[in-house]
Amino acid sequence: MRDNAFEARQEKLREKMRDGKLDAFVVSSAANVRYLVGFTGSNGMLLALPNRTVFFTDPRYQFQAAQEVSCAVRVATGPLLARIISVLRRAKSRRVGFESSRMSFEGYQFLKENLPMRASLEPVAGWIEQFRMVKSADEIACIRRSVEANSKAFEEAVKRIRPGMRETDLAAEVDYRVRGQGAEGPAFETIVASGERSALPHARPTSAALRSNALLLVDMGATLDGYASDMTRMLFLGRPGARVKQVYNAVLEAQLAAIDAVRPGRTAHAVDRAARQTLAGFGLDRAFMHSTGHGLGLEIHEPPRLGRKDKTKLEKGMTVTIEPGIYLQGFGGIRIEDTVVVTANGCEVLTPTAKELRTI
Amino acid sequence: MRDNAFEARQEKLREKMRDGKLDAFVVSSAANVRYLVGFTGSNGMLLALPNRTVFFTDPRYQFQAAQEVSCAVRVATGPLLARIISVLRRAKSRRVGFESSRMSFEGYQFLKENLPMRASLEPVAGWIEQFRMVKSADEIACIRRSVEANSKAFEEAVKRIRPGMRETDLAAEVDYRVRGQGAEGPAFETIVASGERSALPHARPTSAALRSNALLLVDMGATLDGYASDMTRMLFLGRPGARVKQVYNAVLEAQLAAIDAVRPGRTAHAVDRAARQTLAGFGLDRAFMHSTGHGLGLEIHEPPRLGRKDKTKLEKGMTVTIEPGIYLQGFGGIRIEDTVVVTANGCEVLTPTAKELRTI
Repeated sequence: MRDNAFEARQEKLREKMRDGKLDAFVVSSAANVRYLVGFTGSNGMLLALPNRTVFFTDPRYQFQAAQEVSCAVRVATGPLLARIISVLRRAKSRRVGFESSRMSFEGYQFLKENLPMRASLEPVAGWIEQFRMVKSADEIACIRRSVEANSKAFEEAVKRIRPGMRETDLAAEVDYRVRGQGAEGPAFETIVASGERSALPHARPTSAALRSNALLLVDMGATLDGYASDMTRMLFLGRPGARVKQVYNAVLEAQLAAIDAVRPGRTAHAVDRAARQTLAGFGLDRAFMHSTGHGLGLEIHEPPRLGRKDKTKLEKGMTVTIEPGIYLQGFGGIRIEDTVVVTANGCEVLTPTAKELRTI
Repeated sequence: MRDNAFEARQEKLREKMRDGKLDAFVVSSAANVRYLVGFTGSNGMLLALPNRTVFFTDPRYQFQAAQEVSCAVRVATGPLLARIISVLRRAKSRRVGFESSRMSFEGYQFLKENLPMRASLEPVAGWIEQFRMVKSADEIACIRRSVEANSKAFEEAVKRIRPGMRETDLAAEVDYRVRGQGAEGPAFETIVASGERSALPHARPTSAALRSNALLLVDMGATLDGYASDMTRMLFLGRPGARVKQVYNAVLEAQLAAIDAVRPGRTAHAVDRAARQTLAGFGLDRAFMHSTGHGLGLEIHEPPRLGRKDKTKLEKGMTVTIEPGIYLQGFGGIRIEDTVVVTANGCEVLTPTAKELRTI
């Protein structure tokens, strides 16, 4: 990301602060800090003031911060919030915003007890997350590279599948191939679930062997230059029976219907409804127990949520997953997931991987 | 872990609740939830009541919770805290504890606004973390297996090191080998830092090639059956000069002095001081800018912290890292790290990997 992109983001935050009559804002979420100043370490906070931004980290990140961060850097040997308080005092800040969904109660209490007299703390939720929902061209390019690396890694891993291989072996293979494609690593714990275990939507890979004549679910993502991708594909080790094909096609229809529903101006819940109604036509809607998708970017789960209740209007530049699935105990689970970007007239499916039920 | 181990832990929490005059306690940290009931998923909360424990999760984890969790399970389609509130109402709880360092301000506010009249919210910090500091024999066995898998993976990865290989390639190799040893995955983002980049204590691997005639720092850990290990070793690609050997020996002496200082009854800061004083003898203490170590278990960073200010008295069964390091811009960084367990008379170094500066 170019330095002036970071400055533009900081300026956007200052504009929000002016609207909200805040003269200081404490940013504590790692992803939001990265978005605003480019720091990629795990322990950093920002203080946005009306005319400048100050970044705080601990001594482990001193050199890294000097390389990555363009604003002023303060290296604190104690708690970062204590250093932030001392800058707030000198700046004589009066109305101090903080990220209420990201800051712990303890952090809040520390700020409250140590703020200068007459200063107030103002909980703020989702400002920066809101900026982050709509991605810039640079960010979409990052996500596209992440999606492509992930799909290449999938193809490489699929070639190594053998009956009798353990779920954990395949997960290790996936993660290795993801790194081999230039990613920093997997964007989340890779899901490899064989047979009936595919009915656990967030199954951890186990030492169980991949079963023959059974479904195999692989849900994987890469983090590349900080940006996430997310894809789920189904395989069948053997020849699938009629019921598997039938359910697979129902989920695929639901996924295509949801993709078709994505366009600027649509609400997030309308996309979810498209998937749900399609599955209802097959009598399978009660086996679909999660949302149709979620935003992704610097984090693997970001707003909007393509679920029953989210009223966010989709905008050009949003990147979301489309991933309906059905889960039936005794049968297994089937989920199909792509990463898509909202375009001027609809959406572009970034994931290049074919969507047929692959047999091995 | 056996079911009765979980019940004993829940009973210990109830005892704390009685002492603190709480008739309900909301547990929101994933590691603490896992410690108390065995749930390994990412979204679960517990409500401890005077005579029972209730576990809450979302529908994605319905089947998994049924398999893993022995107490009552409630599957919520909305926010878990909303379901918790409704159970609190029926239980007529009056003094409700919550984890103040783990709960977000937003979560706290939701509870506060929805609690029954006359009920109060009581911030509590570190109760379960305190239980977790001293590991059971079963837990130590888990950590030992995690350490051993990690060391085996290190040896396998070292064999693949070639000059010109990228840092990210070696990190991918490390993670692959860690999985190959039966671990769920790396316990944290593997650090591979070549040459001057080793002066960044928490360097992310980059696409830079491993340099010849340069230091190479590898900091890696496994998560196996939920338990973390952590090790740092130094290599040199070529023949190290006198200065490298000298600094290496200083860090090694500091590490051995700190290990020697570990025993029941010692304070955490005394162990840190042992490392720091040794480095001061070499004029290197100012280049040692982090703590000497940290507890580890279900999380990679747990109390105690072997730093200047931590007054925790070490007890038999605590597992901690010992990892002094020095970082000099223009020269690089040298860190040596083992995982150790406090025993009746001192400590046992679990890490089996030799500690000489390895040349390749």
